[in-house]
Amino acid sequence: MSEISRNDPNARSPKVAIVYGSPSDAQTMSKAGATLERFGVPYEQVSVSAHRAPRTLAEYVGELAARGIAVVIAGAGLAAALPGSVAALTTLPVIGVPITGGALDGMDSLLAIVQMPPGVPVATVGLNNSTNAAVLATQILALSDPGLRALLTAFKDDFEKAAAAGLEEALAPDR
Amino acid sequence: MSEISRNDPNARSPKVAIVYGSPSDAQTMSKAGATLERFGVPYEQVSVSAHRAPRTLAEYVGELAARGIAVVIAGAGLAAALPGSVAALTTLPVIGVPITGGALDGMDSLLAIVQMPPGVPVATVGLNNSTNAAVLATQILALSDPGLRALLTAFKDDFEKAAAAGLEEALAPDR
Amino acid sequence: MSEISRNDPNARSPKVAIVYGSPSDAQTMSKAGATLERFGVPYEQVSVSAHRAPRTLAEYVGELAARGIAVVIAGAGLAAALPGSVAALTTLPVIGVPITGGALDGMDSLLAIVQMPPGVPVATVGLNNSTNAAVLATQILALSDPGLRALLTAFKDDFEKAAAAGLEEALAPDR
Amino acid sequence: MSEISRNDPNARSPKVAIVYGSPSDAQTMSKAGATLERFGVPYEQVSVSAHRAPRTLAEYVGELAARGIAVVIAGAGLAAALPGSVAALTTLPVIGVPITGGALDGMDSLLAIVQMPPGVPVATVGLNNSTNAAVLATQILALSDPGLRALLTAFKDDFEKAAAAGLEEALAPDR
Amino acid sequence: MSEISRNDPNARSPKVAIVYGSPSDAQTMSKAGATLERFGVPYEQVSVSAHRAPRTLAEYVGELAARGIAVVIAGAGLAAALPGSVAALTTLPVIGVPITGGALDGMDSLLAIVQMPPGVPVATVGLNNSTNAAVLATQILALSDPGLRALLTAFKDDFEKAAAAGLEEALAPDR
Amino acid sequence: MSEISRNDPNARSPKVAIVYGSPSDAQTMSKAGATLERFGVPYEQVSVSAHRAPRTLAEYVGELAARGIAVVIAGAGLAAALPGSVAALTTLPVIGVPITGGALDGMDSLLAIVQMPPGVPVATVGLNNSTNAAVLATQILALSDPGLRALLTAFKDDFEKAAAAGLEEALAPDR
Amino acid sequence: MSEISRNDPNARSPKVAIVYGSPSDAQTMSKAGATLERFGVPYEQVSVSAHRAPRTLAEYVGELAARGIAVVIAGAGLAAALPGSVAALTTLPVIGVPITGGALDGMDSLLAIVQMPPGVPVATVGLNNSTNAAVLATQILALSDPGLRALLTAFKDDFEKAAAAGLEEALAPDR
Amino acid sequence: MSEISRNDPNARSPKVAIVYGSPSDAQTMSKAGATLERFGVPYEQVSVSAHRAPRTLAEYVGELAARGIAVVIAGAGLAAALPGSVAALTTLPVIGVPITGGALDGMDSLLAIVQMPPGVPVATVGLNNSTNAAVLATQILALSDPGLRALLTAFKDDFEKAAAAGLEEALAPDR
Repeated sequence: MSEISRNDPNARSPKVAIVYGSPSDAQTMSKAGATLERFGVPYEQVSVSAHRAPRTLAEYVGELAARGIAVVIAGAGLAAALPGSVAALTTLPVIGVPITGGALDGMDSLLAIVQMPPGVPVATVGLNNSTNAAVLATQILALSDPGLRALLTAFKDDFEKAAAAGLEEALAPDR
Repeated sequence: MSEISRNDPNARSPKVAIVYGSPSDAQTMSKAGATLERFGVPYEQVSVSAHRAPRTLAEYVGELAARGIAVVIAGAGLAAALPGSVAALTTLPVIGVPITGGALDGMDSLLAIVQMPPGVPVATVGLNNSTNAAVLATQILALSDPGLRALLTAFKDDFEKAAAAGLEEALAPDR
Repeated sequence: MSEISRNDPNARSPKVAIVYGSPSDAQTMSKAGATLERFGVPYEQVSVSAHRAPRTLAEYVGELAARGIAVVIAGAGLAAALPGSVAALTTLPVIGVPITGGALDGMDSLLAIVQMPPGVPVATVGLNNSTNAAVLATQILALSDPGLRALLTAFKDDFEKAAAAGLEEALAPDR
Repeated sequence: MSEISRNDPNARSPKVAIVYGSPSDAQTMSKAGATLERFGVPYEQVSVSAHRAPRTLAEYVGELAARGIAVVIAGAGLAAALPGSVAALTTLPVIGVPITGGALDGMDSLLAIVQMPPGVPVATVGLNNSTNAAVLATQILALSDPGLRALLTAFKDDFEKAAAAGLEEALAPDR
Repeated sequence: MSEISRNDPNARSPKVAIVYGSPSDAQTMSKAGATLERFGVPYEQVSVSAHRAPRTLAEYVGELAARGIAVVIAGAGLAAALPGSVAALTTLPVIGVPITGGALDGMDSLLAIVQMPPGVPVATVGLNNSTNAAVLATQILALSDPGLRALLTAFKDDFEKAAAAGLEEALAPDR
Repeated sequence: MSEISRNDPNARSPKVAIVYGSPSDAQTMSKAGATLERFGVPYEQVSVSAHRAPRTLAEYVGELAARGIAVVIAGAGLAAALPGSVAALTTLPVIGVPITGGALDGMDSLLAIVQMPPGVPVATVGLNNSTNAAVLATQILALSDPGLRALLTAFKDDFEKAAAAGLEEALAPDR
Repeated sequence: MSEISRNDPNARSPKVAIVYGSPSDAQTMSKAGATLERFGVPYEQVSVSAHRAPRTLAEYVGELAARGIAVVIAGAGLAAALPGSVAALTTLPVIGVPITGGALDGMDSLLAIVQMPPGVPVATVGLNNSTNAAVLATQILALSDPGLRALLTAFKDDFEKAAAAGLEEALAPDR
Repeated sequence: MSEISRNDPNARSPKVAIVYGSPSDAQTMSKAGATLERFGVPYEQVSVSAHRAPRTLAEYVGELAARGIAVVIAGAGLAAALPGSVAALTTLPVIGVPITGGALDGMDSLLAIVQMPPGVPVATVGLNNSTNAAVLATQILALSDPGLRALLTAFKDDFEKAAAAGLEEALAPDR
């Protein structure tokens, strides 16, 4: 019902914790792990529900900073309490991923995650967009890691280069 | 920032706990207390935020059943986590009151309260309708209190009598 | 077009009535019965539409309390009048289950069930979440039934234990 | 809490019944009466709540046809059950007026009125638009009343004449 | 692209006109014709778009009353102008059927049909609910046709009888 | 109930027609006229309702092209049929302005204007944003009017210059 | 990842640029090209993302007017920035096509495209309705091209003729 | 039209840039600055519109990293392109503040900010909640600044202490 993925058995200590409320969220959240691996950012990944296992969650979150985690990515659906519950229990930056799946197209989870009270922010990304949660986590870590910054710059430049090449081809006179 | 109301200094032990997430919710929630007083149901009333004071909330909720509380009424706005957080921490029935006040007309709080995951229900009433939360709490307590049941029956009959009288007057031929 | 399920031919008298507006709601509402059976709570289950058979419904609801029913679970879709119609006719606690199926993702049934006028509450649970309706009914019955309370406590503890075990495994160093 | 208006002490028997769920709806619904008076259609007007006084409502609706009422206009807000409850109890055409006033801009009452199950229609008009409910009732009565039909035709022609005159003035060269 | 259905080659003159904006609406609207046939109400059925063929529509609508049509049922999707355009051009009662099919679940067509300006009503029924449009048309025609009224009463009684039978069976002790 | 504004008694023939459905829309639509005057574009302005005066509207629209009008700006609220009705009757480009004012924040008028069927477009701008309707009309006219194009370029450049100046001041070291 | 379509190797210089934010939008946008071809309007078609390749987009848009493009059609989904970004960088008329595909039925892209600030309009058409974008572009070009105007008039007349023929057949007595 | 605030004339170099799209957003965004001052985080504050001054914005954003800015807070309303436009032009973490003010309660700006395409995240906070944007920026900066981390921990503890004190007072027996 929960699992940890590391891209290497000798992995460096994880910097990002990926948490989600239900095992059914695993596939949506897997893009976060894949994206972090692309940038070489070590992470751990667990499934704990804020509403079903609040005490286990509180224990887990209480030890994150001491264990070296710098950023938490939390995904949940429906009355998506997980990101806010994590944010309530730590001063680390928490990134929230609203997940669709119920009857309301994810509008319930989006509002339940983004509309936090003053003093307890959750950095919300788009619906099911765990890729962006991972890119955002990488941007945060890159503030003190010039190597990551360079990777992000190249990542962005690649988009421009591909677009420029496509444009040139599309407008070529001999087509 | 929080207060307790009892309808008598020698009040019987409170049966209902009214909890709300922010002091600004006090006025909306005051109808719950007024309605409980009408039925003679003793209650206590406190303000604790699930997102700002999760540890204090957990301690408070953990002792409710032992202190004789039977039903919890929890009101909150925005990403309204309070009712669900209480429900996560107790097996007592929890009634949720979504409160308006933010930019989205309370749709955020309604969805954040009602869309709980299977296993952890919140009995949600209408937006700002703390009156109904109190009537529902009374209906629950009346299951083992025939006196309360009689009060509720009279409460309902009064509506019918008033409507019948109004109707008779409206349709009177000499008008 | 309607049926009654009892978990035993010698069943004790039903404590919960599960009512729904259309035979097409039967599958969604079947989770309520399954959950009540898990807790050993006897129930009956009928299909009566508030809009198509208002007189039959009024007769049925009028006899519920005398027949020993303590809680009503009412599910309906579209302009979901059933839960409110039942609540209008009894002082028993009524739990409403908004059911999706029409064009509007269930937002119509959610609002039609939860936005009751002051004095006539419906305890609304999440869309299609008849499981939570049954857990809520059990929580209400447990107020005067210590055996049920113990079952609910164990139900909740099992969630925590499973989460803690999953977490331990996920963070185990040898993975 | 309810009243009847007739445009003449010696009024002919009312043809239209205007019903609304709460005395607070009286002002919104008053445009219906004013419009019926403009067309000389006799009507009665009462306030009965479907959720608070279901038995009184059932009695009142049960006698409408026998008393000569041909069309019912029913207005309500929130989980607006009144129009549908009336339609469930009569085969007369029922016109529903969704009324705003709660937190959700009337979307709750609109959906609760319009989304009726097959077999039990409510002829829904726009939010708070009791004027249109009265025009629609007049259009229905005009099917067997040529005088009313002539009044409606003139009513429509007046709109065209006013628009044409305004247009001519707006496009006049000497302006 | 349009067709007329009559339940008999020697059919009486049609009393109801069923109009829809696009041939793709034909299946949704077919329930209206089927329901009218059940009540023996003669009707005609055509497809004309308000936005694509406004002049043809104006001509058609202009002759409806003279041809003996008493009620118009108009169905449309998206920016559903058809019902309102018909209502603008006649004083006959117009029943609007909002049709889903676009990206917004029919909310666009519902609002475009129901929110008419004062003076030009459209009697709106539920999304895709052309059955109810036909029942409503029958209720209107029954005001001057006692035979139809009797059919509608039987139609309603059948619902009650079926529900009562189902209830009796569901609560039978030997089950 | 309608009026025409020209920025000069000896005005050149109007190029843009500003039409709106109700005199109550005049203030919202006045920004369109003011913006056209800023660019020196001659226009006329009339109030005609598509639902109340469909014949007058059809006559007016039928003559627009012959009178030299090149672009129509049409504003309306509620079930905002006006822009689509104009578009149905002409091949000139029609710009639609959804106007708020009813209970639904203008979502009804936005959807009723933008969701046109294939073949009959309305160029929809933001809610109440008649300024943008006028800028868009000017951009269209500028395609064959280099003077207008130069004015639009300057209009855009002024935004950049003001922003650059503000930025420089904001970041000045001596502040 | 981007391509250009011309209906003839000796094509005249393109007058319309069709731009979209993601290769996955190509199919939805293909109706725009097909419609322009029907009217004989030369166009080019490229895929450039406003958020992923802002510099490439700025370069491309900066040269459009000089290259003879008169109208831009821009389609995008989600937080659909492309149409507004193009409009920010040119004074040519920009037509925006909101595209569905994410979790929110395209409501996100519709609002992100239509709600532009005063001074920077986007002519928004219906969800996925790239056909209408092309018709609108043709209507704009027809202002200075009588041949195109004649084609548009015939296009509109064909709708009327087909509807009139269908109507005649539907109402024929011998059917 | 733009201004910079520093909490000290000899301020350290700003770490956070607060940008907003319109001078009318200044008051909503002022809570961000006030909150950063509370934590002693130096910042600058400018007003630049993405849609009106895209070139000025691109220049400004292009220099942010070189000038030592670590986090950008961007607030905007309507089709709120600013946060996404900034994110498109930098690899720094960008925090988006959706601002209400138009007709749609801010739902337009929320969706336009949060629904970014994969690869270009915006860390979205609640509607008008610039306080949370500042707390989130502080949490990010605290990852490499133990002093800030201590301030955030105290900030959180103060909430718990106040709640615990309030609770104790509310439940005191002598009240």
